[in-house]
Amino acid sequence: MPDAAVPVATGPLAGLRVLELGHFVAAPFCTRLLGDLGADVIKVEPPGAGDPVRQWGARHKGQSAWWSVHARNKRCVTLDLKKPKAREILLRLVAGSDALVENFRPGQLDRMGLAEAALRAAKPDLVIARISGYGQDGPQRDRAAFGVIGEAVGGLRHLTNHPPGTTDLPPVRVGISIGDSIAGIYAAFGIMAALWKRDAGRHGDGRGRGLDVALTESIFSLLEGALPEYGALGTVRQPTGGGIATAAPTNAYRARDGVWVLIAANSDPLFGKLAAAMGRPELADDPRFRGNQARCANVVALDADIGLWTAQHDGAALEALLEAADVPATRAYTIADCAADPQLRHRGMVREVVDAQLGPMLHPGIVPMLPGDPGAIRWAGPPVGAHNDEVFGALGLGAGEIAALREEGVC
Amino acid sequence: MPDAAVPVATGPLAGLRVLELGHFVAAPFCTRLLGDLGADVIKVEPPGAGDPVRQWGARHKGQSAWWSVHARNKRCVTLDLKKPKAREILLRLVAGSDALVENFRPGQLDRMGLAEAALRAAKPDLVIARISGYGQDGPQRDRAAFGVIGEAVGGLRHLTNHPPGTTDLPPVRVGISIGDSIAGIYAAFGIMAALWKRDAGRHGDGRGRGLDVALTESIFSLLEGALPEYGALGTVRQPTGGGIATAAPTNAYRARDGVWVLIAANSDPLFGKLAAAMGRPELADDPRFRGNQARCANVVALDADIGLWTAQHDGAALEALLEAADVPATRAYTIADCAADPQLRHRGMVREVVDAQLGPMLHPGIVPMLPGDPGAIRWAGPPVGAHNDEVFGALGLGAGEIAALREEGVC
Repeated sequence: MPDAAVPVATGPLAGLRVLELGHFVAAPFCTRLLGDLGADVIKVEPPGAGDPVRQWGARHKGQSAWWSVHARNKRCVTLDLKKPKAREILLRLVAGSDALVENFRPGQLDRMGLAEAALRAAKPDLVIARISGYGQDGPQRDRAAFGVIGEAVGGLRHLTNHPPGTTDLPPVRVGISIGDSIAGIYAAFGIMAALWKRDAGRHGDGRGRGLDVALTESIFSLLEGALPEYGALGTVRQPTGGGIATAAPTNAYRARDGVWVLIAANSDPLFGKLAAAMGRPELADDPRFRGNQARCANVVALDADIGLWTAQHDGAALEALLEAADVPATRAYTIADCAADPQLRHRGMVREVVDAQLGPMLHPGIVPMLPGDPGAIRWAGPPVGAHNDEVFGALGLGAGEIAALREEGVC
Repeated sequence: MPDAAVPVATGPLAGLRVLELGHFVAAPFCTRLLGDLGADVIKVEPPGAGDPVRQWGARHKGQSAWWSVHARNKRCVTLDLKKPKAREILLRLVAGSDALVENFRPGQLDRMGLAEAALRAAKPDLVIARISGYGQDGPQRDRAAFGVIGEAVGGLRHLTNHPPGTTDLPPVRVGISIGDSIAGIYAAFGIMAALWKRDAGRHGDGRGRGLDVALTESIFSLLEGALPEYGALGTVRQPTGGGIATAAPTNAYRARDGVWVLIAANSDPLFGKLAAAMGRPELADDPRFRGNQARCANVVALDADIGLWTAQHDGAALEALLEAADVPATRAYTIADCAADPQLRHRGMVREVVDAQLGPMLHPGIVPMLPGDPGAIRWAGPPVGAHNDEVFGALGLGAGEIAALREEGVC
């Protein structure tokens, strides 16, 4: 029931309808990406508190600030899927959808009477994307899907550490829900691949497809040459702290004011420029540091020399010196640095959005960027059940019927 | 020119042709994903050494082991794009392609006479995906696109660290080319969104589209609520080491044999199980640790208690104890652990592939998984120019013409 106040969907996915049976991060992040490019995303939550992310992170006016971004462009409806009437409504929504995205524990939708056969009976050519910790089959499919566990099983946590013997501190978490987010992007890619195959003219076969995206595997897929190297040579990749095993110098160095400054000068010309900027041009001819191989072999001494120099300057001054010397460098941006960055601002990556509940908010922009057809942030994350009347009304339910369903706890 | 020895493409993207003008990680990773799902990827390299990744990482039989995976399923041709004859051949390849993926520095293809107008003249409905460090426009588009710099500008490097004041060690690199890889997945998603819009029946408009994916922005898009929280409240998210600011206990704890074991017991029931497994059930009733909020407030003491316990057991024994107690836990997998993992094996994520150059190799499986139509690893990364005769022959060039072009250094 669009009215004049509802922004019209734009972007390449306008006209696509996606049903989200998601919570936490992975599935909702996937549908956020689809919605940003124009898809009509209908998010189904249990009546009451809804998705736990509504309570996550710092609050603003009693609401999660994250929610403003996480659920933007979505229409939020409530259904208690344990109730038969709710399942019936859900299947009517399925019938009008192109894709469904869910991240329940494997098997849970089946137990709710929403197995794939039921979904396909409602919509034979539906694309069904399932996201889970470990996948929909196999001996460990039922393990609890905590992100930090999945990231460790995918092989990432071992690598986000200082070299063995450097410190007693634990390997760090990447600091964000990296496994969930990457699984979400992979699912968005897979959904569009499946929809292209379904819909694309002479290539299209009109068939729906299923996707089975695991958090562990999404991480594992990014490990570069680690697996073939292990298989062929038996080498086990080890963490390298702030640096890279095969390139030097490239690391984070501390400035006088405590700011960490990244410097990537791991070619001979760049290293020459860095040595000059340090006022020590002779380092470029030092046999310990001549050529990348020598620099890697002597990286501890090299990083120490660079660190002594960076400790004499504040971060901003260092950045200016390195920029003048044409050496790739930057401070490690905090979110305040990101928000102020002229390039991110120029590119529309830091946007002021009016959230109907929270007022003016900063939102990250839309990735991937399609300059001629970019999609839009049509609205910010809505309250629980905000679109019940609109969405259920479009199914033909009258106001009285919806009120009765609410009364019964169906929605 | 398929013959009996060439595996037929399968998967949802069979029939799609993608031209890669890529090098290093981001664009080639994007096309690897497309090729895994069945696309015919033609990778164009300069004659001679080709893509630098052919030399990266550990070598096996004189070749990069990573290359076996990075270029799998691709047809590799050489063209010296500085030569007019090579550009002419390239535009003929463009004419037969659905999408083009490139990660030159912004503007570089224009300077080579391959601006968007030239590409579109050859194929009006081409989808063009450009991947770069900072994007195709804006004040910093010409900055050198080093991954470590881009990840820092995207806000990630600041967060992969221990809390301020914990250590003098630098924030760690994630340990893999995370920014390039994520940009590559985003590009694959954007390409399929654009192709769906081009080709999809009643939704399709037959138009080509451009994509502009930046490494910095791909990272920045994953920062959860950091930007809206900063905008609304002024809070600057800080690193939290191995833990999570809002949940406890969840961290990596060291076992007696030095193995790091992740434990996620940040709910009251799970913490009760952990306390019992530790032989200290009273901890669950300790006022310092009753409820997640109290545990977060006293996380240093809590992590120390858990660490004292884990230090009494070897990693494997700890994992067994925690599994028996139904507490989510795992050691931080090395690549050797991944390769042996029964779940990853069951799911086809660790595959034995015969590389025509290198012999038997381990390859990671295909993500995203489409169980009914999964795509395939048809062949491993080929030598430089391996498909020149086949690809240029299909354009109608005879063997003599191709030999002459090779003689002239065109290919």
